[in-house]
Amino acid sequence: MSDSAFWRELGQQLRVDSIRSSDAAGSGHPTSSMSAADLIAVLMANHLHYDFDQPKDPRNDHLIFSKGHASPLYYSFLRAAGAITDDDLLTFRQLGSKFEGHPTPVLPWVDVATGSLGQGLPIGVGVALAGKRLDRLPYRVWVLCGDSEMAEGSIWEAFEHAAYNKLDNLTAIIDVNRLGQTRQTMHGWDLDSYADRAIAFGWHAIEVDGHDVDAIDRAYTEAAEAHDRPTVIVARTKKGKGASEVEDKEGKHGKPLSDPKKAIEELGGERSLTVSVAKPTGNAEPHRSSTDGGVKWPQWGPDDEVATRRAYGDALAALGGERADVVALDGEVSNSTFSELFAKAHPDRYFEMFIAEQQMVAAAVGLQVRRYRPFASTFAAFFTRAYDFVRMAAISRARICLAGSHAGVAIGEDGPSQMALEDLAMFRAVHSSTVLYPSDPNQAATLVRAMADYPGIAYMRTSRGATPTIYGPDDRFEIGGSSVLRSSDDDQVTLIGAGVTLHEALKAADALSAQGIAARVIDLYSVKPVDEETIRQAAADTGAIVTVEDHWPEGGIGDAVLSALAEVEAVRVHKLAVTGMPGSGKPAELLHEFGIDSDAIVAAAQDLVRTPAGAN
Amino acid sequence: MSDSAFWRELGQQLRVDSIRSSDAAGSGHPTSSMSAADLIAVLMANHLHYDFDQPKDPRNDHLIFSKGHASPLYYSFLRAAGAITDDDLLTFRQLGSKFEGHPTPVLPWVDVATGSLGQGLPIGVGVALAGKRLDRLPYRVWVLCGDSEMAEGSIWEAFEHAAYNKLDNLTAIIDVNRLGQTRQTMHGWDLDSYADRAIAFGWHAIEVDGHDVDAIDRAYTEAAEAHDRPTVIVARTKKGKGASEVEDKEGKHGKPLSDPKKAIEELGGERSLTVSVAKPTGNAEPHRSSTDGGVKWPQWGPDDEVATRRAYGDALAALGGERADVVALDGEVSNSTFSELFAKAHPDRYFEMFIAEQQMVAAAVGLQVRRYRPFASTFAAFFTRAYDFVRMAAISRARICLAGSHAGVAIGEDGPSQMALEDLAMFRAVHSSTVLYPSDPNQAATLVRAMADYPGIAYMRTSRGATPTIYGPDDRFEIGGSSVLRSSDDDQVTLIGAGVTLHEALKAADALSAQGIAARVIDLYSVKPVDEETIRQAAADTGAIVTVEDHWPEGGIGDAVLSALAEVEAVRVHKLAVTGMPGSGKPAELLHEFGIDSDAIVAAAQDLVRTPAGAN
Repeated sequence: MSDSAFWRELGQQLRVDSIRSSDAAGSGHPTSSMSAADLIAVLMANHLHYDFDQPKDPRNDHLIFSKGHASPLYYSFLRAAGAITDDDLLTFRQLGSKFEGHPTPVLPWVDVATGSLGQGLPIGVGVALAGKRLDRLPYRVWVLCGDSEMAEGSIWEAFEHAAYNKLDNLTAIIDVNRLGQTRQTMHGWDLDSYADRAIAFGWHAIEVDGHDVDAIDRAYTEAAEAHDRPTVIVARTKKGKGASEVEDKEGKHGKPLSDPKKAIEELGGERSLTVSVAKPTGNAEPHRSSTDGGVKWPQWGPDDEVATRRAYGDALAALGGERADVVALDGEVSNSTFSELFAKAHPDRYFEMFIAEQQMVAAAVGLQVRRYRPFASTFAAFFTRAYDFVRMAAISRARICLAGSHAGVAIGEDGPSQMALEDLAMFRAVHSSTVLYPSDPNQAATLVRAMADYPGIAYMRTSRGATPTIYGPDDRFEIGGSSVLRSSDDDQVTLIGAGVTLHEALKAADALSAQGIAARVIDLYSVKPVDEETIRQAAADTGAIVTVEDHWPEGGIGDAVLSALAEVEAVRVHKLAVTGMPGSGKPAELLHEFGIDSDAIVAAAQDLVRTPAGAN
Repeated sequence: MSDSAFWRELGQQLRVDSIRSSDAAGSGHPTSSMSAADLIAVLMANHLHYDFDQPKDPRNDHLIFSKGHASPLYYSFLRAAGAITDDDLLTFRQLGSKFEGHPTPVLPWVDVATGSLGQGLPIGVGVALAGKRLDRLPYRVWVLCGDSEMAEGSIWEAFEHAAYNKLDNLTAIIDVNRLGQTRQTMHGWDLDSYADRAIAFGWHAIEVDGHDVDAIDRAYTEAAEAHDRPTVIVARTKKGKGASEVEDKEGKHGKPLSDPKKAIEELGGERSLTVSVAKPTGNAEPHRSSTDGGVKWPQWGPDDEVATRRAYGDALAALGGERADVVALDGEVSNSTFSELFAKAHPDRYFEMFIAEQQMVAAAVGLQVRRYRPFASTFAAFFTRAYDFVRMAAISRARICLAGSHAGVAIGEDGPSQMALEDLAMFRAVHSSTVLYPSDPNQAATLVRAMADYPGIAYMRTSRGATPTIYGPDDRFEIGGSSVLRSSDDDQVTLIGAGVTLHEALKAADALSAQGIAARVIDLYSVKPVDEETIRQAAADTGAIVTVEDHWPEGGIGDAVLSALAEVEAVRVHKLAVTGMPGSGKPAELLHEFGIDSDAIVAAAQDLVRTPAGAN
């Protein structure tokens, strides 16, 4: 059999297997798989370099299905590569099966979870950046995109960054099957519309008939030869290609075929072709950059007033001097987040992502695919832009560190658009996350080090304004811990804050003390996981707790404390948080106006102490 | 004075005033204002149609500062238009001033809050869609963009949709001042790079010297004459133009000038020019579309098993038959969210936003600027993509209704990428929001009607699977309420759920009853605001509460209940929620596997009832 004939047969097998697995599952997306089957057949047979026995081989290419709903095709590809059995394939979408509705890294060959459209390509940019700038290995990154997902802005962030970084190791393959979920896409089969956009963004573009295996083969060869530019292959395909029941028909998205038997017959029946995908060769040693950044681990003394964002930058720069795997990204606010300190010390490991927060988080996810430890920073408020990417990063079992500066009304004059007031809630509601909120520079630095080893999504909220140094450089802080700063046997009330409100709580404790009210003060620097034991002890000891946070009342410190006390009786909690929409003003004015300064804490504590327990 | 000479003088005044206000505030972005001053001077003097005394006049043009940090320029523009005084201007960024760090609609002339980059243009697309397709009035939408924000993907979603919808009433003005916050942008002064992209996306593009007032004037005229296409004016400008201290210099972003006196002198000193901005003329009556959709208000009987997403669609279609101001948008999943029912009944008021969730929410915000009541729907998980737009919509004091379908593990086989497990937390942590989660079709329909009158961000979570009908069509449900479905004087425990878990709670109550344990059941369909009174009464009556939700443990129903009970003693709450990362499976299998089905509720309730109060 000629190569071309084999590729065509292989394409048919991928289609048949996509139909079979979806039929076994009773759900799935066979038609979206069938359109791209020839594209994947030629890729695996003649262009991909991958050792399925060694998925962590640094030389392997990376194949990302940005159109994750084409999972039947991906799993059929794995079967054709000999990586999985036919029985595996037919467990598709069953409880406990690793062959989920959309691919996730529970399978060793899957780099990242997809299924939220528009993410695979920006993540691929991150992997390709790792290949070019860090590993300096010749692996290629192939990303299969759907035409519908070209409507996602994140795709164009990826186009921009791939061209800007001259990622000629990246190839995007757009499966232009014309049909979305409910109707034709905006551009139908107008391949030029995609190619013109890509060219304007600085890419090399090739238009092909996505069912002409020889044309596809030539396109991949041309893509691999492109220099200084990424390539997009814009392929005209038919959804459901080869089965008359569904081919190029509307209303056939995301469901198994009614008559799979007939369709399989039309496609020439079941096959068991196996492809020996080419293994990667050559140097297997990724480049490792120097750890000589000339930065000492930072320390601050009791007289220093320092913003935690500054401490973040100092610590990150120092950490980069200890660990070659630590890299940093920023959304063009590095002089605000202080990631610029890392950029200056380790320019080869700093990635300027400009004002593209989705691409920034996606690139972080891509970099960790290649086992780097990315720290990505921007204003905390602007991580809301990338929430879907964070959500999916958790499904990808990614290890990424995120730092958001400029938390809360305490930023002052810039006003509400720049004030993060929902970030604690947003990041707490992420699987596998930790949420850290230091109150002091030494603590911030220690937690930066801890984040680098955290096996999930680590988020740190940093503050804009300088605050006093209350800890020593050798004090220990662990993820999941807390710090009790004031405590006595006579405590009548407990004050819990973090960041700027911890300092307000300390002031409040002094004021209360002057009134004869002993207050315990807890620094809840680890908002998730939360130190349940210390909180419960405080509840048992004092029976009254005031929480105070520069955040909306929902989902932040107050809710974390209440959650720790859910099954505890005999404790009353008063939550102080930002309840009105802020405007501009000086930080202290806004803390006062929104009732989260020491005055408000004192009043709330007095109230709790004066109202007899059990009165409500 | 010739027109050109006047425009130049006016530009200088806008610069001087930007410097003065930032100097008075001690912060702000004068240099980013100075680059665009000539663009705004010519616009207001010769092209804008706006009645500052009647900001709600439907004929008014709309001017949106997508680069919201150029607020000093915007406020200087208001002063030059005679809308505000010089004293007003100099309150910039002070506590209580309406002249905030970034513009918000506390000023009557501001349509929407900006300051998170990349939002003004997609919102402008929404306003322009209203003008073209709904109002059918000839007002124009002018959006001033920064060059840095062109890196945001949302900008390209806007380019795509503006061209697709042939919005020739929309003009984007890109102030290419070359410099971002820390460095040069990716494209510097390469105007072609922006123009080429815009042309590829289907726009008309004009490159100009942004300090040549005559060229600017011609460009605006050309833009207004463009037919069937939006126009972008790509203007080469200098940041800090006209002041030697800052002109085209790095490191001058976001700070007042060191020597404002000298700069003002260089700019020719203070001026008090006033422009009579042309008032709009002609027909002031927006078109109102027919309310004849032929859809009756839906009702379901006790034997119907119906998904709440289906009820959402039926109710929305019916509501559209009652109210001409109700419009719908969807992210190309209208057959999943059932907004397709609205689309069929009212095609002229349905907007297909394809897979561009940021643009979808932005368009909703733009449509409500023109006083429509937009309902935007997609899978609940994909609203994470638009969280920054929702956050900013709250600052815009926008009234929008959002509906997210496919909540939680109960969706089954599609897997975690499609399962919303953070949406309740995300939407609770939005200022002015209400979060609704109906459990029954009649309830869902009633709440759809309530959402339309809600003065903020209204979010409804709908379910994929069919559930029994438990309410009658005349039952009343109010935002902030709850429904007690089982209650007796002997209740020993309270079960609180919503959506699919409410039905599990009802099953659990039956099972507990058979064991002699009386359980109260509360349907918490309004997760925010939460019905504190009913929850507290249940706490007082039963002393033990089990909350159960198809959501991560953080920020959802459990936390809302705990928050209502913060100051209540003598109650123990056990939260059931999804704690592990789900895979695929059947809905019932996943509810069981993740401990949120009736079995888990029964076990938790037994535990609470058997453990004597006060034992912990």
